[in-house]
Amino acid sequence: MLRLGIDVGGTFIKAGVVDESYAIVHKVSVPTEGDAGYRPVVQNIARVAELAAREAGRSVKDFALVGIGIPGLLNPRTGVVVSAPNLNGWRDVPFLDEIRNLLPAPVRVGNDANCAVVGETLAGAAKGNENVVMLTLGTGVGGGIITDGRLFTGGHGLGAELGHMVLHMDGETCGCGMDGCIEAYCSVTSLVKQTRRAMEADPTSAMHGYAREAGLVDGRTAFECSKMGDKAAAKVVEAYCRYLARSIGSLVTAFRPDVVLIGGGLSNQRAYLMDKLNALLPKYVFASDVIGVPPVIRATLGNDAGTIGAAYLDRM
Amino acid sequence: MLRLGIDVGGTFIKAGVVDESYAIVHKVSVPTEGDAGYRPVVQNIARVAELAAREAGRSVKDFALVGIGIPGLLNPRTGVVVSAPNLNGWRDVPFLDEIRNLLPAPVRVGNDANCAVVGETLAGAAKGNENVVMLTLGTGVGGGIITDGRLFTGGHGLGAELGHMVLHMDGETCGCGMDGCIEAYCSVTSLVKQTRRAMEADPTSAMHGYAREAGLVDGRTAFECSKMGDKAAAKVVEAYCRYLARSIGSLVTAFRPDVVLIGGGLSNQRAYLMDKLNALLPKYVFASDVIGVPPVIRATLGNDAGTIGAAYLDRM
Repeated sequence: MLRLGIDVGGTFIKAGVVDESYAIVHKVSVPTEGDAGYRPVVQNIARVAELAAREAGRSVKDFALVGIGIPGLLNPRTGVVVSAPNLNGWRDVPFLDEIRNLLPAPVRVGNDANCAVVGETLAGAAKGNENVVMLTLGTGVGGGIITDGRLFTGGHGLGAELGHMVLHMDGETCGCGMDGCIEAYCSVTSLVKQTRRAMEADPTSAMHGYAREAGLVDGRTAFECSKMGDKAAAKVVEAYCRYLARSIGSLVTAFRPDVVLIGGGLSNQRAYLMDKLNALLPKYVFASDVIGVPPVIRATLGNDAGTIGAAYLDRM
Repeated sequence: MLRLGIDVGGTFIKAGVVDESYAIVHKVSVPTEGDAGYRPVVQNIARVAELAAREAGRSVKDFALVGIGIPGLLNPRTGVVVSAPNLNGWRDVPFLDEIRNLLPAPVRVGNDANCAVVGETLAGAAKGNENVVMLTLGTGVGGGIITDGRLFTGGHGLGAELGHMVLHMDGETCGCGMDGCIEAYCSVTSLVKQTRRAMEADPTSAMHGYAREAGLVDGRTAFECSKMGDKAAAKVVEAYCRYLARSIGSLVTAFRPDVVLIGGGLSNQRAYLMDKLNALLPKYVFASDVIGVPPVIRATLGNDAGTIGAAYLDRM
């Protein structure tokens, strides 16, 4: 039977019809229209589901499951979205109850980063693994954990906010308001900050020319210039990889995954990033001399991970 | 039916006969004798089980379960002890297989800190809670997690080593060889280090007289002198509580417990410690403004927590 995975973003709601081999056979999207509160968004979600069904030659009731990924803190059992800053600040929204009334199919909801790890574990880079930690490096740092083949979300489904665990107490200020979170060092936003600082400190760095040509400083600036031999850029990359490896090491110590996945745009650095992380990791994992460390690899499904994972939330 | 909980320490093996109301009705102990490898220890465990059974007027086969807590890294399913530094460096010992051959009763094994959180959740300070994080502050920092009423131990049962998660990257060196672990800031060993440093920096501190009278500097020195109004001691306590609160905040962000338990000798500081931790915690938990924070309370069963938890390992 077909399933529908829906990814609710701040700007667009994207839906994918997913078949039994985890392939996305049809995609549609509609604007989120979150400005007027949550009800129009709920209606748009129902609309995208009907649209996807129709375009796939079915109706919504033909889907074995409609799974919905939300960018926020939610209790996956009650379906209450406690907080979703990217959706115009939803607070305590009884999301699952509302959307269930509009969809004639079984519905599951999950945090978007959790949907991504489910997708990658069922059909992507972590396929066949029972214990997985995934970090998605973007504007923030999203996290997802699979333990013993089940999605781990902590008490009331509100935990596993890995980006806001501590890396460096009293360190860099995080977007969340706390100091020293993993996100404050390992997000692409933070990498860009670190890159800018290094550029200010070294006017001769090749990063200036690279950024001028690209029209901006972004997550690629330091990595690409480091590859070309720029020393200031290499230092930025080295420091960034240490932050990330120390964070991963701490998560491995807690969750002991068989594989660690890196998602988000930065994972396009492929071996250049993964090789550095894998080389650093043993130093940062408790008892790595006796237990070893898991490999750090690139997530492979990109944005589809969230769609596939949402459609199969009930599998994990 | 009665059960037997066994706590294997570096010096003594302690056993407690536990009844159906979680009361320890009889206690015995024998020396560990770990100098000659693991086999004599296994035999001593069997011996203490027989001794406990006999003294309670039963035989080992009358126990519904014999649960054994081990101070080390082990896979609770296979029962292989991967590493146990306090037991003369056990490495990859097929512990459960060996002890099962000697005991005519069902046997379960667990990490000692995990046994403690099971005991406290079934019968102690966290009774009735489904989501619990416990930190035992001693020579090191032990950790245990209950999520949705089940013991969480990570992949292969080898995770949840909370004391070796990162608090301050590149910070204090930890006993494990890594830098900046929670244990390197929050263990009693670390508190004593922090106390000594403050004493060296301030020869006028009341801590000098207190330590002279007590005959040593220990986990009480700074706390007791702070209560008496010593400023240098108050600074040590303040810094220590911040380290501990930031660590707890990070664990709450990951595991979202309903209650956080503090065990070990330092928990005898009771409200003087807990009030400070509870006051600091909201600052250190992700989204505490929308989700709130759990209370931090004192574990109440002391050493009995491990015995009771071991005897009821199958319940969680």
